[in-house]
Amino acid sequence: MVSIFELPTPAFVIDLEVAKRNCDRMREKAAVSGVALRPHVKTHKTIEGARLQLGTERGPVTVSTLAEAEFFADHGFDDITWAVPVAVAKADRIVDLTRRVERFQVLVDHPRAVSILEEAARAQSVRLRVFLEVDCGDHRTGIDPEDDQVLEVLRMIDASKALYLAGVLTHAGHSYRARTRDEILAVSEEEVRAVNIVSERARSSEIGVAVRSIGSTPTAAVVERFSGVDEVRPGNYVFFDAFQAKIGTCEWQDCAATVVATVIAVHPGRRQMVVDAGALALSKDRGAEHLEDRISYGVVLDQAGHPRGDLRVTTLSQEHGKIEADTAAALESVRIGDIVRIIPNHSCLTAALFEQYHILRGSDVVGEWRPVRGW
Amino acid sequence: MVSIFELPTPAFVIDLEVAKRNCDRMREKAAVSGVALRPHVKTHKTIEGARLQLGTERGPVTVSTLAEAEFFADHGFDDITWAVPVAVAKADRIVDLTRRVERFQVLVDHPRAVSILEEAARAQSVRLRVFLEVDCGDHRTGIDPEDDQVLEVLRMIDASKALYLAGVLTHAGHSYRARTRDEILAVSEEEVRAVNIVSERARSSEIGVAVRSIGSTPTAAVVERFSGVDEVRPGNYVFFDAFQAKIGTCEWQDCAATVVATVIAVHPGRRQMVVDAGALALSKDRGAEHLEDRISYGVVLDQAGHPRGDLRVTTLSQEHGKIEADTAAALESVRIGDIVRIIPNHSCLTAALFEQYHILRGSDVVGEWRPVRGW
Repeated sequence: MVSIFELPTPAFVIDLEVAKRNCDRMREKAAVSGVALRPHVKTHKTIEGARLQLGTERGPVTVSTLAEAEFFADHGFDDITWAVPVAVAKADRIVDLTRRVERFQVLVDHPRAVSILEEAARAQSVRLRVFLEVDCGDHRTGIDPEDDQVLEVLRMIDASKALYLAGVLTHAGHSYRARTRDEILAVSEEEVRAVNIVSERARSSEIGVAVRSIGSTPTAAVVERFSGVDEVRPGNYVFFDAFQAKIGTCEWQDCAATVVATVIAVHPGRRQMVVDAGALALSKDRGAEHLEDRISYGVVLDQAGHPRGDLRVTTLSQEHGKIEADTAAALESVRIGDIVRIIPNHSCLTAALFEQYHILRGSDVVGEWRPVRGW
Repeated sequence: MVSIFELPTPAFVIDLEVAKRNCDRMREKAAVSGVALRPHVKTHKTIEGARLQLGTERGPVTVSTLAEAEFFADHGFDDITWAVPVAVAKADRIVDLTRRVERFQVLVDHPRAVSILEEAARAQSVRLRVFLEVDCGDHRTGIDPEDDQVLEVLRMIDASKALYLAGVLTHAGHSYRARTRDEILAVSEEEVRAVNIVSERARSSEIGVAVRSIGSTPTAAVVERFSGVDEVRPGNYVFFDAFQAKIGTCEWQDCAATVVATVIAVHPGRRQMVVDAGALALSKDRGAEHLEDRISYGVVLDQAGHPRGDLRVTTLSQEHGKIEADTAAALESVRIGDIVRIIPNHSCLTAALFEQYHILRGSDVVGEWRPVRGW
């Protein structure tokens, strides 16, 4: 059996027990809360990861690209939500997925998108399942829940025979700007409030909103129970990462993904070493920089798997990761050829850089997952 | 023929005429300077791109990974330098490439790497071609030219029958921290000086350094002629990017690579629009942030292909690129479904995110390149 120390580097490895524990916890929380879990698969983009999240072979999933949707449809998944407002030119692929998959949902946040989708659906004689996306404070996509456009869009969908209103959905992306668990809990209240404002407004107009869907890993991981919603869509919690640990979403021992790198240069006089994990192995995501004076492109672990506070990944070029030490002594025992493990800042972006993930039990490599890629 | 406006987005597109002009200029500069051009292929990782750089079917190239080296060897390239200090555990693949390729060079910057390589070479009865990497001011990898270790390493290589001293090499990565063309020119002097200090010191010890090799796109693009060196290894100049334009290495019209994205949300009230090019389409490289008050993850172009100063890509999540406008009026004519072109901050990292590059003549897609990936 291959050990982690024999992998060609840089390598992306997943501690299976940790990932499984993360998934079990989230599934149990959804179950005791009586809400549906529709895990986001964008972090890992694999069938194996989705099965770990679902605890079963198939189930409802959330995807970030049509390529993911098609990949999961190919593997028999029949309830898929594409949680990014539709690029309207892709109506043909949306229609195709609607035909192939029992329930395929897409997002709109503008009347124009509704019109274009409706036209495509009518031309192809299908009924498209549509979520209205509302903004609960992230200000990325989604209509403000109080905006007049909310009712305009809901009425357009409700009135159309070619569209079906699947529900109202929000993503609390601003939970990533939180500094503490209390701030995350405050954001959690905002996401619940946003979908309920809309479902109440819809009800007043005699429009039924079947599903109130929320989801971000920080809020989903921090709340004790889910309430006031029908569905949750967290994703990153499978692997977690340095960002989540730093904002208080998880503990360090919950981080399931690491990048394994080889030391290719040591310069104690410069208090530096260089590993073969650069920007194409770690990603240039700066992590929780709103909480830190000094950035690091990941967290270097010691032999026992604990974060080292005295080492920082200060500079990434394409294939070089420069690690700086607080003292020359910290590098005294480091030799060219040594193996270093690094928790990535943002596991979603890091995972997407690798063709395969090596699955670990302890230090043994017991499997390999291959993610889908592209759009 | 497919036009750029019909590509599924996000898409990575290359203006072939611009890339060819960039390549022709660099090749001509090397030719009139009487130095060898060994283009770095890490920016594009394609055979087609290398041929554009070389102006011929095959020739000497520089690579950033063994996967690139093997890919180019598979396509008949027989003179390849891997310009990252060797990960010593990969000695088997290095030996294999040395057998397959007429000239395959690797880098060392430490006596320990020399010892490990020598042992592998002797065990396999091959002679490995080795460059000594020296540090000309970037302080990433490479030995200080004045350090005693320089002669130690040169003597070790020179004394070994299993190793061949291919030359001395430096990379002026600190040219990327320059603010002006004059600062770039100063760095250019440092890289030339560094390799010449070492070749002089070697000569005093009766060790011949056959090749003094330098290379970074900023220095190579800005100097009028190359002198005092035998070989240059720039790479990024094929495509250039927003970073290079901002530090003065190129003009905006020299940027050959753009990401094509679709507008998926417009919120004039928030002075925002969102496109379907997020962190996995643009990369989270912040570009020339040492020159700017406000960062942008790329430069948005107008219909005529000129940079828009009033729009910035302020936030990237995995599949969303949030673009903020200085005024609501700037978004007045924008509609969901519109196509936007963005010059990436760092074309190397952006290119690596795509499975294929679409090759343009004008607005027609005339070809497709597929890069090698991984390590």
